[in-house]
Amino acid sequence: MSGESGKVFLIGAGPGDPELLTLKAVRALAAADVVLIDDLVDRRVLEHAPHARVVPVGKRGGCKSTPQAFIEKLMIRLARRGSIVARVKGGDPFVFGRGGEEAIALAEAGIECSVIPGITAGVGVPASLGIPVTHREVARGVTFVTAHARDGGAPDWAALARTGTTLVIYMGLQRINEITAALAAAGSGAVPAAVIERGTTTEERSVVGTVATIAAQAAAAGLGSPALIVVGGVVALAKRSRAVLPQRHSA
Amino acid sequence: MSGESGKVFLIGAGPGDPELLTLKAVRALAAADVVLIDDLVDRRVLEHAPHARVVPVGKRGGCKSTPQAFIEKLMIRLARRGSIVARVKGGDPFVFGRGGEEAIALAEAGIECSVIPGITAGVGVPASLGIPVTHREVARGVTFVTAHARDGGAPDWAALARTGTTLVIYMGLQRINEITAALAAAGSGAVPAAVIERGTTTEERSVVGTVATIAAQAAAAGLGSPALIVVGGVVALAKRSRAVLPQRHSA
Repeated sequence: MSGESGKVFLIGAGPGDPELLTLKAVRALAAADVVLIDDLVDRRVLEHAPHARVVPVGKRGGCKSTPQAFIEKLMIRLARRGSIVARVKGGDPFVFGRGGEEAIALAEAGIECSVIPGITAGVGVPASLGIPVTHREVARGVTFVTAHARDGGAPDWAALARTGTTLVIYMGLQRINEITAALAAAGSGAVPAAVIERGTTTEERSVVGTVATIAAQAAAAGLGSPALIVVGGVVALAKRSRAVLPQRHSA
Repeated sequence: MSGESGKVFLIGAGPGDPELLTLKAVRALAAADVVLIDDLVDRRVLEHAPHARVVPVGKRGGCKSTPQAFIEKLMIRLARRGSIVARVKGGDPFVFGRGGEEAIALAEAGIECSVIPGITAGVGVPASLGIPVTHREVARGVTFVTAHARDGGAPDWAALARTGTTLVIYMGLQRINEITAALAAAGSGAVPAAVIERGTTTEERSVVGTVATIAAQAAAAGLGSPALIVVGGVVALAKRSRAVLPQRHSA
């Protein structure tokens, strides 16, 4: 712990595989006095912070074990005491990670804050299945959404389907029936789709089908959260691009 | 060079800052006999491959200095001779990086290929300005597109605007007038917008305004490629989230 004023690093730990941490994140962890770590982050990232105190602050699915306001207050208190705080989140802090809220709270409290981006699940997880999310013959780009907004409303699935982009839906497994029904109603029933549980980790499991079939396939396979739903013609390229793909962890 | 059959790592080097390389990428580079590196990737990443032969294979903007087919043939030839090939691309290999084409070509040639994802510019670059691209009070998600598709057509900007997602437009600076005109015609003229040149590097430059003003601002500032255009209410949060943000390179 330094004698001067502290600071906070908002760190993205990537989609699951602890080797997908960046060098910048490793350096921040090595400098940290305290690590606040989310539930879904692989504990092996803590090997890079051997001298830090570790505080688990996970929020798993709907069950908010540590309220957001408490996490923000804790970071501010620790930094004011002079600590270097590493706040470690899965994926990227600014992609569905509530990092924006934390950065704003820290800025308003006058606490120095550095954001260290991470590989978001929507990029890293499809890649682990060999799905090139923006493959230019079949996609105009890629859109990342969650299944429901803060106001309780659902995304405009018809507008999303019309964009011609690959859709990557975060935290959508619990609503997969309504999502796929809405996309099918928008004319996308035959579009290839995949559900991937714990992508990039050694526990990765997935099913591949179409918008019309994927909900039943995910249920039959017993897939659970955290999971990503990917919808688009690019899903059908997975087999072609990884005919001989080796174990990811030999990388 | 190993006596047995070679393989290819398709590696994403991240948005610019060489410290945003992953540990997995570093390990693959250390194992490589040959590195094929794109123009826009910072040469400091080669420090992780001190014993490898380096072949620059850049394609800058519209000027294709090394045709895609040549790169694919070279990777296949090298791997067949037994080389471990590290193919290093900016950002992520599967997000507008043509990595899908390369993975398919390798698979069809029977060459082992591992994809190592990287931080795509659309995630890492807005973060460096303090823009939380999916901040849930103002965005439904985020969409990454390019300004033009392979077939020469433009994206459906009106449909994209209707999704309520933040738009991140890659390689769009040369067409910024037509892009912003189309978005303004879709009713988004007053939406906050930013253009960021060489984000996350020490040469980063940017302008912040609205869809209606940003093209003139980028021209007045003399911004050039590579640059990213970000459109959405989240752009206005940049100041709030980084009132005291330090130099990124102190991270």
